[in-house]
Amino acid sequence: MSRRERPRGATVTLAQGAGGRAMRALIEEVFLKGALPSARPHGAFSECVGLEAQDDGAALRLGDRWLVMTTDSHVVLPIFFPGGDIGRLAVAGTVNDLAAMGATDGAVLSFGVVVEEGFAREDLERVQASVREACRESGATIVTGDTKVMPRGELSGLVLHTTGLAFADRVVRDAGLRPGDRILVSGTLGDHGFAILAARGRIELDADLRSDVAPVNGLVRAALAAGGPGVVALKDPTRGGLASALHEMAAKSGVGVLLDEAALPLRPAVQAASELLGIDPLHVANEGKIVLGVAPEKAAAVLAALRAHPLGRDAAVVGTCVAEHAGRVLLDTGFGRRIVTEPEGDLVPRIC
Amino acid sequence: MSRRERPRGATVTLAQGAGGRAMRALIEEVFLKGALPSARPHGAFSECVGLEAQDDGAALRLGDRWLVMTTDSHVVLPIFFPGGDIGRLAVAGTVNDLAAMGATDGAVLSFGVVVEEGFAREDLERVQASVREACRESGATIVTGDTKVMPRGELSGLVLHTTGLAFADRVVRDAGLRPGDRILVSGTLGDHGFAILAARGRIELDADLRSDVAPVNGLVRAALAAGGPGVVALKDPTRGGLASALHEMAAKSGVGVLLDEAALPLRPAVQAASELLGIDPLHVANEGKIVLGVAPEKAAAVLAALRAHPLGRDAAVVGTCVAEHAGRVLLDTGFGRRIVTEPEGDLVPRIC
Repeated sequence: MSRRERPRGATVTLAQGAGGRAMRALIEEVFLKGALPSARPHGAFSECVGLEAQDDGAALRLGDRWLVMTTDSHVVLPIFFPGGDIGRLAVAGTVNDLAAMGATDGAVLSFGVVVEEGFAREDLERVQASVREACRESGATIVTGDTKVMPRGELSGLVLHTTGLAFADRVVRDAGLRPGDRILVSGTLGDHGFAILAARGRIELDADLRSDVAPVNGLVRAALAAGGPGVVALKDPTRGGLASALHEMAAKSGVGVLLDEAALPLRPAVQAASELLGIDPLHVANEGKIVLGVAPEKAAAVLAALRAHPLGRDAAVVGTCVAEHAGRVLLDTGFGRRIVTEPEGDLVPRIC
Repeated sequence: MSRRERPRGATVTLAQGAGGRAMRALIEEVFLKGALPSARPHGAFSECVGLEAQDDGAALRLGDRWLVMTTDSHVVLPIFFPGGDIGRLAVAGTVNDLAAMGATDGAVLSFGVVVEEGFAREDLERVQASVREACRESGATIVTGDTKVMPRGELSGLVLHTTGLAFADRVVRDAGLRPGDRILVSGTLGDHGFAILAARGRIELDADLRSDVAPVNGLVRAALAAGGPGVVALKDPTRGGLASALHEMAAKSGVGVLLDEAALPLRPAVQAASELLGIDPLHVANEGKIVLGVAPEKAAAVLAALRAHPLGRDAAVVGTCVAEHAGRVLLDTGFGRRIVTEPEGDLVPRIC
């Protein structure tokens, strides 16, 4: 097909890249066809949690350890936004996906750059400085890379691609929830998505609408140290927000999740923007948070460990897993319960 | 910076993405700043051939083996071209970079898709079928992925990102050439680049202008089995063609390379297109070839092994390394010697 022809038949939609139900359908219908079944050995790896698992990344067994591998393309617009930029997002996004599989130390990253002809060299250097700083913060190192330049007009700006590797002694899946387990979040919700909306001029820029973009591997390490095997599930709540993350976790685990609205940590600026725009902050992307499923007897210890970390001061126990309503997420508003929907798409394209 | 502002100062140029000298300068000036020095241990890895080495990929030491990691973004246009498509290119490109470091078995791949809103679903499925077929051919498996959709007009078509992992018992670098070593190529030169030129209507489409895109890991495996430690250097001659590959190998190894023009394997259609357009086929990208540096006493055995493989029938010994002219590539035309220049940029953007 010439790229100027209008395709007939079905085409890819923005919602299919937005982290919700539409994206999962696309992945299942196109990309999972013929994929490696989970747990099948491959080459040097005796066991594999693969594509089929649709977790934050893959886990490849090497002797008594697991090599976790995860990949992300970063298309955020604008490239520089309140609280961060695409470089910090690229490193944090990959480090956080590794951490969400239980791999919190010494990530090794590959780094692909696709840039539009005419992009300012100074901005590229600024992004690169931010990449280095995020690597330093998280203990990650870039070991290999690739650079492509696209002609002016064929790409708007800059796309980064990071793939990360790190070892885990134990892989923490997103499917490990059991009735009775507590749901914890490591801090305030929706900060990244609302910051991007503000940066795009969709809402007035409030100084407190800042992205939370940060590598949370240190925070996850502290939580795992405090909770041990009592930390039964982890997930990185990016596109689609906490709602999407919990829907996936609930569906894969076969439990319902009951959230306590009063316990959800929200910045006042996010709360205000959410009410103004009628956007549920549970549907909005986070880039420096982690969702944890924790056995009830370990919830207090894990919460204390999270709160002792600079990135976890606003951590909270926000819900409980129940045997009923399998695959559903319910919100207790204090006046009754409502169903938390899974977002179809994202607020705006290029949120991360 | 808003993406509509015109940047002042230096900007990124097409040549900086074209695999030649301009790209190396950009990498050195921007991306290598603060990068991990080669051979420094990191996390679980006791030794590392990293970004600084600018080889086909990184190599991370794990006990007595090396885990090789390589990454590529694929922006080829058109997406479907004579002899292949972007899906086959993505898998082959990554498998070949791994093979060029000596890692020829059971690659594990991550797969990132960035697609324009409105892209035909049917084409995406066709690309995906091609990805699966190339995985089957090369014994590779995709274990994790990511999908992003960009609004119509912000990306022309489809970009794929693959990162590969595979083990090598011995890492074969691109810097291992010594005076006296022979240079071998596994087949005809320039096929991919001329096929793309033809597909873009720059030259008349000749049925014999077909991309060579193919995974060559099996071919490299056969060469390594035949030559053992006598295979002293490997390189994947993609952007910038054989000339760029040999310039890098010669400069890093501190030798000169003397090519024999009469020995260079060229398809008649490529020869004709090259003469018509005045483009040196040595400057043109290959996507299913390997360049080998082989100790003289092993050259015949390696050549025989290459020729016995379906992808290596046109393999040839094309040159010799010399102690003089360090870092240079010379061509013996039969009438004298001329310097083979390193290409500044590529023929057209989005060649791979």
